[in-house]
Amino acid sequence: MKIVPHVSLVTVIEVVAIMVGAFSGFVEARRKRMDIVGVIIVAFIAAFGGGTLRDILLDKRPLFWVEHQEYTILLFVLALTVAPFMKHLRHIVSERLIVVADAVGLGLFAVAGVSQAQAAGMPVFIAAMMGVITGIFGGVLRDIVCNEVPMVFRDGKPYAICAFAGCWMYIVLQHVDIPNDFALWLSAATISMLRLLTWKFDMRIGRPS
Amino acid sequence: MKIVPHVSLVTVIEVVAIMVGAFSGFVEARRKRMDIVGVIIVAFIAAFGGGTLRDILLDKRPLFWVEHQEYTILLFVLALTVAPFMKHLRHIVSERLIVVADAVGLGLFAVAGVSQAQAAGMPVFIAAMMGVITGIFGGVLRDIVCNEVPMVFRDGKPYAICAFAGCWMYIVLQHVDIPNDFALWLSAATISMLRLLTWKFDMRIGRPS
Amino acid sequence: MKIVPHVSLVTVIEVVAIMVGAFSGFVEARRKRMDIVGVIIVAFIAAFGGGTLRDILLDKRPLFWVEHQEYTILLFVLALTVAPFMKHLRHIVSERLIVVADAVGLGLFAVAGVSQAQAAGMPVFIAAMMGVITGIFGGVLRDIVCNEVPMVFRDGKPYAICAFAGCWMYIVLQHVDIPNDFALWLSAATISMLRLLTWKFDMRIGRPS
Repeated sequence: MKIVPHVSLVTVIEVVAIMVGAFSGFVEARRKRMDIVGVIIVAFIAAFGGGTLRDILLDKRPLFWVEHQEYTILLFVLALTVAPFMKHLRHIVSERLIVVADAVGLGLFAVAGVSQAQAAGMPVFIAAMMGVITGIFGGVLRDIVCNEVPMVFRDGKPYAICAFAGCWMYIVLQHVDIPNDFALWLSAATISMLRLLTWKFDMRIGRPS
Repeated sequence: MKIVPHVSLVTVIEVVAIMVGAFSGFVEARRKRMDIVGVIIVAFIAAFGGGTLRDILLDKRPLFWVEHQEYTILLFVLALTVAPFMKHLRHIVSERLIVVADAVGLGLFAVAGVSQAQAAGMPVFIAAMMGVITGIFGGVLRDIVCNEVPMVFRDGKPYAICAFAGCWMYIVLQHVDIPNDFALWLSAATISMLRLLTWKFDMRIGRPS
Repeated sequence: MKIVPHVSLVTVIEVVAIMVGAFSGFVEARRKRMDIVGVIIVAFIAAFGGGTLRDILLDKRPLFWVEHQEYTILLFVLALTVAPFMKHLRHIVSERLIVVADAVGLGLFAVAGVSQAQAAGMPVFIAAMMGVITGIFGGVLRDIVCNEVPMVFRDGKPYAICAFAGCWMYIVLQHVDIPNDFALWLSAATISMLRLLTWKFDMRIGRPS
C-alpha cells in the first residue's frame, strides 16, 4: 500500500532535480567552450552523476536513468532543443531563478538519496552521507570533467552542510508519528530553505587554518 | 549454436580496440612527462576504461579484462616492451595510421558496447548510449587522469556522433533479416567509415552559442 | 576457525591505512585552499577511494566503510576535531613521520587488496593489480579531485612498483608452508620497507624517452 505513492514521490523528486542539474552542466560546459557533444554529456553527468554514484555504491540496478529511460530521452531532446538558444536563455533566466531551482534540486536529490539508502538497508550515518553524495556529486563530477576543483569544495558556502542537516532531519522524523511522505517533503523543503537563507545572507564556513 | 561465434566476434573486437586505446594512453601520458608507472596505468585506463565503465553501469561481472586476464597481461608486457622505444615509435607510426586504427577501435568498441547492453536487457536508447560510452569513455577517463578537459568534448569533431549513429544502425538492423554477426561488423565498419570521412573532410559540429 | 583472525587482521590493516590516507587528503585539500566541507570529503576520498574502487571492481558489497560504519564516523569526528589545528599539526608532524606512516599504509592497503581479490576468486595477475589499485588509487582519486595530475604517476619514484612486488610476494608465499596471517604481515612489511628504502636512497624509475 505504502510503497506505490512513495515510489511516485521519489520519481517526481528526481525529474525536477535532474532538469536543474542538467542546466548547471549546460552552463559550465558552455563556459568551457565545449562543443555540442561535450555540452550534452556534461549535462547528463551533472544531472545523473550524483544518483548514479549513489546507485553504484548501493549496488542498485537498474540505475534510475535506465529504469526511467524517459528521463534520459527527455534530457537528450531538451538538450538538443535548448542548445541553439543557450545565449538567449542566460538573459531570460536570472541568477536568482537558477539559485532557487538549484536549492530545490539539492533538497529533492539529497532526500531521495537518504531514502533510497535506507531502503537498501544502510545504517543511518551512511544513509545521511548517501543523501549528501546524491545531492552534491552531480556538481562534483561535472566540475571534475570540466577540469576544475569542485566548486562545492572551495566556495566556502554551507551547501553540503544544508543537505547533511536535512538528511538527518529526515532520519529523525522517521521516529516521529507523521506520514513518511510528509517527512520526505518537509526535509527536502528544509534543505532548500537553509540553502536559500545561507545564500541570501551570504553565510560562510571556515577554511582549515 | 549462435552464442559461440558471437562471443568470439566480440573478443576479436575487444583485443583490437584495446591495443589502439592503450596506445593513445601511452602517447598522452608521455606528453604529460609521466614516469613508466603513470604511462602503463594511463594506457590501461585508456584501453579498459570505456568497457569497465559500461560493465559497472550494467553491473556485469567479471569485468571483461578480468574474464580475459590474458588481455591484461598482454597489455602489461607490451607496455613494458614498447616504453623504451616510444620516441622512435612515433616516428615510425604515422598520424594517418593512428587515426585509422582509432577509427577502427571506435567502431568495434561502440558496437561491442551496444551489443552487451542489449544482452543485459537494456532498452534501446540506453543501449545506444552504452555503445557511445564504451566507445569514448576510455579517452574521456584518460584525459581526466591527465588533467585535461576531455578532447572528445571540445574538439568540435563528430566523433561521438559517428558512434551514436552506428549504434542506432545496429539496433535497426536487428529487425532486418540478416545474420547478427553481419549486422555487428557492418555497423562497426560504418562507424569507422563515418569517422574517417568526417576526419578527411575536417567536418565540424557546432558549439552552443 | 581461520576466517575470524584473518578478518580481524584485515580490519586492523584497514583502520591504520585509512587514517594515513585521510591525513594526506587533508593536507592536499588544505593546500588547495578548500573549505571545511572540501577538506573532509577529500580526506574521505583519499582514505576510502582505493578500497572503494577495489570493491566496485570486485562487485563486493557492503563496501568496507559501510560494513564498518564506525570507520566512517571516526574519520568524520577526527576530521572535525583536527581541522582547526591543521596549521599547528604540520609543525608537530614531521615529513619523516608522514613518509613512514604512508609507507605502512601502502603495505597494509595493498596486501588487504590482493587478499580480498583472491577471496573474490580473481586470477593471480588481476589480484596483484587489485592490490596496487587498493594501495595507490586513494591518492590518485585525491589528486584528480584536487585537479592535479596524480603524483604517483609522475614523481618518478617506485611507489606502485613496491606495492606490486609485495603483492606478488604474498601470492607466492601462499604456496609456501607458512600461516596465511604471517604471509600477509610479511608481505605488507616488505612493501613498507621497499618504499622506505627507495625513499631513503632517493631511487628513481625511468620516463619513456
